[in-house]
Amino acid sequence: MAKQIGRQTYKLENPVYIIGNYALAGKKEGQGPMHEYFDRVALDDKMGEESFEKAERRMMEEAVFNGIKSAELNEQNIDIMIGGDLLNQIVTSNYTARAYDIPFLGVYSACSTMTESLTIASAFLDGGFGTNIACVTGSHFSASERQYRNPNELGAQRQTYSQWTVTGMGCTILSKNKKENSPKITHFCIGKVTDFGVKDAANMGAAMAPAAMNTLSSFFEETNTRPEDYDLIMTGDLGKLGSDILKDLMKSKNYILGQNYMDCGHIIFSSEQKTFQGGSGAGCSATVFNSYVIDKLKKKIFNKVLYLATGALMSTTTNQQGDSIPTISHLVVLES
Amino acid sequence: MAKQIGRQTYKLENPVYIIGNYALAGKKEGQGPMHEYFDRVALDDKMGEESFEKAERRMMEEAVFNGIKSAELNEQNIDIMIGGDLLNQIVTSNYTARAYDIPFLGVYSACSTMTESLTIASAFLDGGFGTNIACVTGSHFSASERQYRNPNELGAQRQTYSQWTVTGMGCTILSKNKKENSPKITHFCIGKVTDFGVKDAANMGAAMAPAAMNTLSSFFEETNTRPEDYDLIMTGDLGKLGSDILKDLMKSKNYILGQNYMDCGHIIFSSEQKTFQGGSGAGCSATVFNSYVIDKLKKKIFNKVLYLATGALMSTTTNQQGDSIPTISHLVVLES
Repeated sequence: MAKQIGRQTYKLENPVYIIGNYALAGKKEGQGPMHEYFDRVALDDKMGEESFEKAERRMMEEAVFNGIKSAELNEQNIDIMIGGDLLNQIVTSNYTARAYDIPFLGVYSACSTMTESLTIASAFLDGGFGTNIACVTGSHFSASERQYRNPNELGAQRQTYSQWTVTGMGCTILSKNKKENSPKITHFCIGKVTDFGVKDAANMGAAMAPAAMNTLSSFFEETNTRPEDYDLIMTGDLGKLGSDILKDLMKSKNYILGQNYMDCGHIIFSSEQKTFQGGSGAGCSATVFNSYVIDKLKKKIFNKVLYLATGALMSTTTNQQGDSIPTISHLVVLES
Repeated sequence: MAKQIGRQTYKLENPVYIIGNYALAGKKEGQGPMHEYFDRVALDDKMGEESFEKAERRMMEEAVFNGIKSAELNEQNIDIMIGGDLLNQIVTSNYTARAYDIPFLGVYSACSTMTESLTIASAFLDGGFGTNIACVTGSHFSASERQYRNPNELGAQRQTYSQWTVTGMGCTILSKNKKENSPKITHFCIGKVTDFGVKDAANMGAAMAPAAMNTLSSFFEETNTRPEDYDLIMTGDLGKLGSDILKDLMKSKNYILGQNYMDCGHIIFSSEQKTFQGGSGAGCSATVFNSYVIDKLKKKIFNKVLYLATGALMSTTTNQQGDSIPTISHLVVLES
C-alpha cells in the first residue's frame, strides 16, 4: 500500500519508472539555452497547418507518437493517456486523444498539468491500474496569446514583468516495469489552490510564486527534508521575477533555495531573446523536464530531483469580472 | 492489487464506498420530475450574485460544503478534492477549491466529468492514496449558454434537436471506510475519444451516443456481462434523441437496452418544460446520480448500476474552425 506521509504528500509503495520521453520545441525555444537537449525543434511554428490551434494539436500528436516510440512500445501497450493543455476545453489534448486508440483522462491544471498528470499516473500504476501510462502536455505561444491576451497581429506592447508562453510539447511514458537507467517517481505532493490577491494576468510569476511556496514548504515539513537534500529543485514557469519572489518567500520560512534551485521559465530563454521574465505555459516545464532533466537523471548527474510545475487557474472571464488569480503547484519526487 | 480486466475496464481490489452526497438544482430543474430527490432547489439561479459565473461558483461551494457535511466529516478529513466543470479553464472548480483547505486535482471531461472524477478517486483510494475524496461537478444554464452558444438576452431560436444545459451541482464523498448502507464502486471503465463526424454543436445527443456505445459495449465484452445483468444502466445526458440513437447502436451490437435503461437528460425535465430533447451539461447526471440513484442504491431498490456520463469535448474555436465533435464516456459500476 502507498503511504500518506502528510496532508499533501504520498510515498508510492513501489516506484514508477520513466521509460520514455520526448520534447518537441518551437523555433524560438530552439534558439535558447536548452537547444541541445530537445528531441526536435520545429522549423515552422505553424507545422504546415492553417491555424495555430491545429499546429498545437499536430505538435501534441507528434510528441505522443515519439514518446511511445522512445519507450519501444506501440499504442496498444499504453493503457491510459493523461493529458491537458491551456486551450479552452483542453481541445489540443482531446483531439490528440481522438487520434489514438488509447483510453483517455483529461486534466486541467494550467501550467501545472505535467506534474498533475505524473501524479495521477503514478497513483494508477502503483495501485495496479495499468502497466504503462502516457502523460502529455504543452502550449503554443500564438494560440495562447490570442485566447488569453491579444492576437499577435495587434502588436500590443508587452509589460516588462511579463513572460513568453512557450511553444512546445512534452510527453513522458511511465511504467511499472523498469528499463535500464530509468529514472523513477517515488513521491508526489498534491497542491492546494492559493491566492495572494494578484489580479494582473500579465504578472504570472508573482501570482504563482505563493503556490510554489505552499507546496514546497509543505513537502519539506511533511517529509522532514530540506532544500540541501536534493540535487535539483525545479519550478515550472515562475520566470526570473517569480523565482526571486519564491526565494524570498521560502527564506521567510527558513528554507534557503541556493545553487540547486532552477526555474524552467528562467532558463528556457536567454536574455538576448527579449522575453522579459522568461518562459511560461504548460509547454515550458514539460519540454525542459522531458529533455534536460530526464537526460541528467539517466546519466546520474542528478540523483534526487523535486519538480514542481506551477499553474495560474483564472480565465479571461474571471479576469474581466475583477477576480484575483488562483494558482496551484503539484510536486513529484524523482530519483535516478 | 486492482485487476485490469480488459483494455478499458478495471476491478478495484477493495470497493470504495459512497459515504456522502449532495445535489443542488436550479429553479427549472426543481420543477421537473426529479424534484423530490434533490437536496435543495435554488429559488434564484443567480444565487444573489452579480453574474451567472459567480452564481455557478457559489452553487459548487455549497455542494462541496453540504457533501462533506452529509458524510459527517469536515474539510480536514477530506484528503483530496477532484473537480471539473464546463467553463473555460474550469474556473468554477478552481475558485471553489480556493475556498477550501483541501489538496485539489482539476479534471476536464465535459459532461463526463462526474464519472471521470469518481474513476480517479476510486483508483487513488484503492491504491492507498488517501482515505476520503470529494468529487464535484456541475453546470449553469446561463453561464454555459453565453460561453458556448449565445447570451440568453439575444433570444436566439433553439433547434428542436437541442438540449437544455442543467443548472445544478452534485458532490459525492468516496471513502475506504464503509458506513451503514453505503453504496460502493466496484469497477470502472475508462472511455476512448470517439468521433462519428457530427459537427452541429446543438446536436449533443447524436454526437455523444457513439461514445456511450463504445464504452458500454467494451465494458460488456470485457466483463462478459449483458444489459440484463444490471438493475439500471444510466447514461449522462444524451437526451431523448441521443438515447434513441444509443439504443439503435447497441442493438446493432446485439445488446438490447430495455426497461432498465435510463438517460438523465431524458428524465430530468418533463415534456411540458419545453426543453426539446431534455437536459444536458455536467450538472445533469451529477444531480440525478447524487440524489435519485444513490437514494435508490441505499434503499436497495437498485442493487447493480452502470453509470456512464457522456461528454462532448469540442470548443467554440474548434467549431468555428470546422472540426467535428470528439466525445467520450467514462463508466463506473455501483453496487448497493
